[in-house]
Amino acid sequence: MPTIDLNSDLAEGFGAYKCGDDDAMLAIVTSANVACGFHAGDPEIMAHVFKTAKARGVAVGAHPGFPDLWGFGRRRIPFTNGEIERIVAYQVGAAQALAAYAGHRISYVKTHGALGNMAEADRAVADAVVRAVKAVDPSLGLMTIALSEQAKSAEAANIEGIAEIYADRGYDDQGRMIPRGKPGAMITDPHAAAARVLAMVEAGALITHAGAKIKTPIRSVCVHSDSPEAVETAKHVRASLEKAGLTIVPVFPVQ
Amino acid sequence: MPTIDLNSDLAEGFGAYKCGDDDAMLAIVTSANVACGFHAGDPEIMAHVFKTAKARGVAVGAHPGFPDLWGFGRRRIPFTNGEIERIVAYQVGAAQALAAYAGHRISYVKTHGALGNMAEADRAVADAVVRAVKAVDPSLGLMTIALSEQAKSAEAANIEGIAEIYADRGYDDQGRMIPRGKPGAMITDPHAAAARVLAMVEAGALITHAGAKIKTPIRSVCVHSDSPEAVETAKHVRASLEKAGLTIVPVFPVQ
Amino acid sequence: MPTIDLNSDLAEGFGAYKCGDDDAMLAIVTSANVACGFHAGDPEIMAHVFKTAKARGVAVGAHPGFPDLWGFGRRRIPFTNGEIERIVAYQVGAAQALAAYAGHRISYVKTHGALGNMAEADRAVADAVVRAVKAVDPSLGLMTIALSEQAKSAEAANIEGIAEIYADRGYDDQGRMIPRGKPGAMITDPHAAAARVLAMVEAGALITHAGAKIKTPIRSVCVHSDSPEAVETAKHVRASLEKAGLTIVPVFPVQ
Amino acid sequence: MPTIDLNSDLAEGFGAYKCGDDDAMLAIVTSANVACGFHAGDPEIMAHVFKTAKARGVAVGAHPGFPDLWGFGRRRIPFTNGEIERIVAYQVGAAQALAAYAGHRISYVKTHGALGNMAEADRAVADAVVRAVKAVDPSLGLMTIALSEQAKSAEAANIEGIAEIYADRGYDDQGRMIPRGKPGAMITDPHAAAARVLAMVEAGALITHAGAKIKTPIRSVCVHSDSPEAVETAKHVRASLEKAGLTIVPVFPVQ
Repeated sequence: MPTIDLNSDLAEGFGAYKCGDDDAMLAIVTSANVACGFHAGDPEIMAHVFKTAKARGVAVGAHPGFPDLWGFGRRRIPFTNGEIERIVAYQVGAAQALAAYAGHRISYVKTHGALGNMAEADRAVADAVVRAVKAVDPSLGLMTIALSEQAKSAEAANIEGIAEIYADRGYDDQGRMIPRGKPGAMITDPHAAAARVLAMVEAGALITHAGAKIKTPIRSVCVHSDSPEAVETAKHVRASLEKAGLTIVPVFPVQ
Repeated sequence: MPTIDLNSDLAEGFGAYKCGDDDAMLAIVTSANVACGFHAGDPEIMAHVFKTAKARGVAVGAHPGFPDLWGFGRRRIPFTNGEIERIVAYQVGAAQALAAYAGHRISYVKTHGALGNMAEADRAVADAVVRAVKAVDPSLGLMTIALSEQAKSAEAANIEGIAEIYADRGYDDQGRMIPRGKPGAMITDPHAAAARVLAMVEAGALITHAGAKIKTPIRSVCVHSDSPEAVETAKHVRASLEKAGLTIVPVFPVQ
Repeated sequence: MPTIDLNSDLAEGFGAYKCGDDDAMLAIVTSANVACGFHAGDPEIMAHVFKTAKARGVAVGAHPGFPDLWGFGRRRIPFTNGEIERIVAYQVGAAQALAAYAGHRISYVKTHGALGNMAEADRAVADAVVRAVKAVDPSLGLMTIALSEQAKSAEAANIEGIAEIYADRGYDDQGRMIPRGKPGAMITDPHAAAARVLAMVEAGALITHAGAKIKTPIRSVCVHSDSPEAVETAKHVRASLEKAGLTIVPVFPVQ
Repeated sequence: MPTIDLNSDLAEGFGAYKCGDDDAMLAIVTSANVACGFHAGDPEIMAHVFKTAKARGVAVGAHPGFPDLWGFGRRRIPFTNGEIERIVAYQVGAAQALAAYAGHRISYVKTHGALGNMAEADRAVADAVVRAVKAVDPSLGLMTIALSEQAKSAEAANIEGIAEIYADRGYDDQGRMIPRGKPGAMITDPHAAAARVLAMVEAGALITHAGAKIKTPIRSVCVHSDSPEAVETAKHVRASLEKAGLTIVPVFPVQ
């Protein structure tokens, strides 16, 4: 019986600022990528998400980004690859400690925003992230955009890569995510998103904006948490995958 | 043959800002308390200190403080005890990961500035810090001001407390550090500091501003790094202890 | 024909984080207190609110707070009174420049959160704020909690004080706002809030939680923008005042 | 009798962090470019420099940069030109208010670090800065790198541009500053720097690394404050210009 993981970026609030409905999403997804305080997230929100995730059997990953709260980690800040290693290591460690504090355990890392976009397309950045993850804890996995340089980097370094697709993002002819703001970048209709995810999972392939299929392993589906239709989309994606006979389980089992 | 540890707060720069001479101090002390990015320190400086400390056989501890770079962690910010647990856990984890990245290992925690002053005198704050340390890694030690509430809290929680005295600070009649800015708070003469430390270590007691002795175990001596005379004072303290027959070794051996 | 001003704290988002519906509130209130980037607000949000306020004839004030984005300016950070002068001056200037950039003009200052609470009850803090305002621009007014030390400080310094009441906050027997979290602190029902405001404006007095009246001039009514019922409450307050024959106009006319 | 202005970037510390010797430099230069809290500087340091500058007849300018304390404003952060307008306006206003608070008055603006480098070479960025300055206060001048796009932008917009040369930086064949880290970028010998400045001022031209002369008006000479030899270099530059018969006066007289 085939299985699939459902992941979402959570703990993206900061202090009094809310961002998405973490508790609602934790009732739907099986893996939570937790912001680590650089582009979003604070120790209070992180600890809350770790505790709730543990109670619900949701796996947790560290979700490091650039130190840019104002830009929500979406600005490409010119850090050197060495600096990227250190900011990733720092954030992974902070997340590990707060997970332990909350009775949970980080099992993987996923890069956020501009850092993720850079690691998707630039092997040197991808390698920097992989070096940081291995140095901190070589047992950690790395969630990677399907077909990305980061997926190749994880494989080359012999750390477990988890290829993921996005429920709400379009892909160009090369299988790269269409940048935000360009036509076809965002899929906002929950039903369209759910149907599209199912088609990709069943095909074992990315389906591009133009309709072409690019073969790739798919182990997880990312549903975003910060749009108005986020919870609705996540529910539809989950329901549609379950209806098609897939079991929704975390890649990394929660003990 | 009696031994004593010599510790110092290091990695207190930030980006382009320098604070003290970390490399010079790492040639003198046996334990380095490393700032974790909230009141001082950044991932670059932290990684550099961890790497240098490892090369020199200097033990390293996490040195968490309040998130207050502007105030250098010296303002008493009204965090709840629960929030204190989470900011301590976060910073300890960040330090652990960067230490691992640099090939070293955190062996203890020491609180900084206002957080340290609060934990010195307020048992509830001390207990919050201890809970955070135990939750993150119960094998970690806690460096504590001699005779403080934090020393009692560590003992009650069965984590290893390392009682320390300050080379450059005066003590009041109760054995509390005299607050900065008050008469007798700072000892700036390197020779006076060295003589005073030796007297306390040999007496196994704090010596107050008024000259009284208060018995206490003393396992480490803190020499500050951020004054103009810091390196000179540290050298004198070390030389004076060695001349008196003490061996200067880290409390936590570096493998 | 009697007039009253309606004010609200706006521009309280930060980057991707939204806080309240600034545009909806700017269609209801006559004065907007604009966050200045220390506890909330960023240059983008500030410029947007100034521009929209100008287009709608809404007066604008600077709304400085403690530099504490994580705590939303609600933590009492132990700044000296001198430091308070400088952080207030800095923020007022930033707001003045962005208002000019957007074609508008700051006409008053109102302190936010913990800084406002301290200036309400502590004359020395109130005087520090007043000194900063006078030094930057003596033509600026100061919006003050009715009956507060800040109201007295403004009067003594001969700057224009605008006494305000809160639509959604209860008052204790001394006329001080009941602290958040205590019984009677918050009035969440829009109709109750509107009725209460009208009663106070018509009586020319604060009405305490216990029902007593304390005479005070009332020149403005503050409606908060960051609760789920904020827009609804503001509409009810405005409608109820208008129905009773009051004209809703800014204290400082917009040219 | 010919005159020349001597300017320096001051107030570049932050909280407990020192950067250069502001007081020593204020005894040598005639114009102080004051950091505004985004890449360096805080309200305390800014107010101190404004007060001291006023007492010594030193003109003051706002010195805005990117919001990047960790990177000291030297990272090229991808802000849009619109965002650059708003961050410049914000910082200029903050500096104006603190100058007023300290009894002084901002007379010009000079961009810092990466923002300055971008405005040197990119006309669209230069125009964004000029729009911000004009919107906040059209009477303000703009200190600009000689021969830069920013110099042209100021001229086109009819605001007063003050072309400056750098005492400690080399120029390439096009008259652009050689980037830090490349050969010839920095002139560290105080006597060489002084001789070079005098040669350029007397020639009315930049002198490139290769020895070519490029004609340009020169109204100010920038001496940096943050290197170990900064004060020495500034003294030599001043003495050498005075010996050659130039009067050192601020471009904008201090009343």
